[in-house]
Amino acid sequence: MSVSDSPAQLDSAGRLRHLLTLDGLPRSTLVDLLDRAQACLDDDAPNARLAGTAICTLFFEPSTRTRLSFQRAAQRLGADVLGFDASTSSTTKGETALDTFRNIEAMGVRGFVVRHSADGAVAALAAAAAPGVALLNAGDGRSAHPTQGLLDMLTLRQAKGADFSGLRVAIVGDVRHSRVARSDLQALRTLGAGEIRVCGPAALLPDGDVLAGCTVGHDLDAALEGVDAVMMLRLQRERMDEGLVASLDDYHRDYGLDARRLRRAAPDAVVLHPGPMNRGVEITDEVADGPQSLILRQVRNGVAVRMAVLDALLG
Amino acid sequence: MSVSDSPAQLDSAGRLRHLLTLDGLPRSTLVDLLDRAQACLDDDAPNARLAGTAICTLFFEPSTRTRLSFQRAAQRLGADVLGFDASTSSTTKGETALDTFRNIEAMGVRGFVVRHSADGAVAALAAAAAPGVALLNAGDGRSAHPTQGLLDMLTLRQAKGADFSGLRVAIVGDVRHSRVARSDLQALRTLGAGEIRVCGPAALLPDGDVLAGCTVGHDLDAALEGVDAVMMLRLQRERMDEGLVASLDDYHRDYGLDARRLRRAAPDAVVLHPGPMNRGVEITDEVADGPQSLILRQVRNGVAVRMAVLDALLG
Amino acid sequence: MSVSDSPAQLDSAGRLRHLLTLDGLPRSTLVDLLDRAQACLDDDAPNARLAGTAICTLFFEPSTRTRLSFQRAAQRLGADVLGFDASTSSTTKGETALDTFRNIEAMGVRGFVVRHSADGAVAALAAAAAPGVALLNAGDGRSAHPTQGLLDMLTLRQAKGADFSGLRVAIVGDVRHSRVARSDLQALRTLGAGEIRVCGPAALLPDGDVLAGCTVGHDLDAALEGVDAVMMLRLQRERMDEGLVASLDDYHRDYGLDARRLRRAAPDAVVLHPGPMNRGVEITDEVADGPQSLILRQVRNGVAVRMAVLDALLG
Repeated sequence: MSVSDSPAQLDSAGRLRHLLTLDGLPRSTLVDLLDRAQACLDDDAPNARLAGTAICTLFFEPSTRTRLSFQRAAQRLGADVLGFDASTSSTTKGETALDTFRNIEAMGVRGFVVRHSADGAVAALAAAAAPGVALLNAGDGRSAHPTQGLLDMLTLRQAKGADFSGLRVAIVGDVRHSRVARSDLQALRTLGAGEIRVCGPAALLPDGDVLAGCTVGHDLDAALEGVDAVMMLRLQRERMDEGLVASLDDYHRDYGLDARRLRRAAPDAVVLHPGPMNRGVEITDEVADGPQSLILRQVRNGVAVRMAVLDALLG
Repeated sequence: MSVSDSPAQLDSAGRLRHLLTLDGLPRSTLVDLLDRAQACLDDDAPNARLAGTAICTLFFEPSTRTRLSFQRAAQRLGADVLGFDASTSSTTKGETALDTFRNIEAMGVRGFVVRHSADGAVAALAAAAAPGVALLNAGDGRSAHPTQGLLDMLTLRQAKGADFSGLRVAIVGDVRHSRVARSDLQALRTLGAGEIRVCGPAALLPDGDVLAGCTVGHDLDAALEGVDAVMMLRLQRERMDEGLVASLDDYHRDYGLDARRLRRAAPDAVVLHPGPMNRGVEITDEVADGPQSLILRQVRNGVAVRMAVLDALLG
Repeated sequence: MSVSDSPAQLDSAGRLRHLLTLDGLPRSTLVDLLDRAQACLDDDAPNARLAGTAICTLFFEPSTRTRLSFQRAAQRLGADVLGFDASTSSTTKGETALDTFRNIEAMGVRGFVVRHSADGAVAALAAAAAPGVALLNAGDGRSAHPTQGLLDMLTLRQAKGADFSGLRVAIVGDVRHSRVARSDLQALRTLGAGEIRVCGPAALLPDGDVLAGCTVGHDLDAALEGVDAVMMLRLQRERMDEGLVASLDDYHRDYGLDARRLRRAAPDAVVLHPGPMNRGVEITDEVADGPQSLILRQVRNGVAVRMAVLDALLG
């Protein structure tokens, strides 16, 4: 099942029923979610908008930070949270993901935050969901991580203003295997970013339409020249085992962001990273903890974005 | 310690103090629990009947679905839930189950949902419980899974009415190792089911009094003839390793429920399964997802039954 | 980083900002926490003093009982609890403890209950905490377990009165590797305990200032003579592998507390143990479950002490 082909996340009136991908999401919907998230940040009083509503974090692939962020968002809305780490559960051995989902749905759970290693797996579950039940994709395969895309856009908007038309953004690293990069690229296009540069070793850049409209290159110094924002990606260590990267040292030399390189960007350029960071590999301490880093602001925005999405889908 | 010998679950006035087994539970108590569960289904507004009450899911054997179902039930009553997966905890190494229990009890927890691989283990803990502390057996050894028995009865009652005297039920599969089957058999007898047929390979049927009053056979086609309800059991894959079952294919051929076989039952016969299902082994997709299947209804009823029991014991 | 050198837990006005160690904590602060804990025990109505406040149990070393106790304390104050078992998380591989902490802090969490195997690790995180964020040390290395020390003092105070000047206490066992013993020793000194005897095999007693002011010996019978309280320590089984203890039998013969030995203490002497117990090793069933044992009272007091600390830091 292809996520892009799936119209499942919008109902016939164009309202958001699930959040599966940012691909094809109307600009007005995307902006509305960012506005709601900003409102959550501006008013951090606890509320009870989802009191009595049960939300399940259903993770077929391990994660801690994304799960905690969604859990915190659900708590701040007064929802009840159930956690199911299907990646370590032995009791569901032999049961399909669909049966697991249907069972928890039958317990009265209305919101599902799902992560799965297979592309399209969350959309497949959404296609089977009962009316009134909403799915939030917390990352599927290499396809999409829409709340990460949204929180990155919120972070850029806070720093650089809502008009992205003059914005020059560099996305650096393992774009090929990154669902974060795909969601970021889709959102940047929808919001009309002025220029998107993609930079990484050839073995870590994707084929096909993923990079449509982007300026693609393999020279980090050139890619950084004058940009307003640098979005660094995490290097998964398994890329070494797969032979796609020679060594961490080599990668750092060619694609690691340090203070010297960052000076090529605009003086007020900001740096983003989805975490967890490999310090000393794709990013140095000096940059990660420096004045241009918005990395912890991204984490803070993540809770607000997830509150906004949960409220939009279930409120 | 034998669960059946234990009077611990009823106090001297005949009120339920713990729920350890359906064996010997008075019909009036059983019907009262089913009535309370039905009331929970009919009024799904959140309430706060157990606000401030702490409940611990104490699982010495892994489980996800039963644990989540109890957790959801507790949340819907406004209780605080603590989870302790003793099957993976390394910190309690060398500590007895009784010391673990007494410790969590001393933290002020009033309700314990306990699963243990040893027959009678939950009753043994109940015998040590302080006044005001209630234990709910979430499955012990092969002995009992009383809330599963109750939810199965609720499901049958909704489908076939409260008078079980004309009801013909077939229980199919690995009855010998099944605590679900024991609890179902006890409840069906207490509620006066008209006819109980038990069917499975000889190696998977129990000795002794477990099947007293049942029609026992090894031919599934004959067992299904004209029945009003079919209760399928899960085949544990370890039965193969133990040599009790030759192969999944053989088992499916002889004891798998498919649409063709189901036609031997009454036209309005219903199908139950406690989950998780081995699709293609004890049940086919066509039956599991077909119009006669009440499998997801069982899951929904499970939350209501557990709310009813928690409220009866702690409310 | 040395915990003892760190002034981080008190602000410039002498108010408690974090609870890292009992070492150097003013007597008035310690007594205030015990008074607050006693008040929590005397009024067990649920309250909402921390409603809307998020607390994370961040455990880099596994624990169940301490984590549950803190979780229950937080629930009783109406707080939202997030759990992160960093000892089993694969997703934070390669991420530093500091980055993990900063991330969860950025999600809006205000209280962190942290356990770590390295001495000073919790103080190091506290040094990085934002204003308004409080850390509670749930055990670091061999250094400190301050809430255990507090609950032990509360238990002694309930049994023997607030004036410790006439109190004779024996601490028995593996003091060398015990953070519990260090926190107990510091608190007993601050509260002016009349006499502190420390007893254990030479290989399990610490060097340096840890035992300053204590009567130290290797003969349990002599150490117990006339004491008002016996604080037994858990024997970690790895002490055998390290060659520090010959066998469990030998240890029990020389340092196990049984009823016969306990008769050497004062007739109304009380027995404490931080749990989990190795029954038959450092303590017999007869003593653990006997009338002089306050072991379950310690557990009960633990929830109250943790409520008091959470409230003092975050309320």
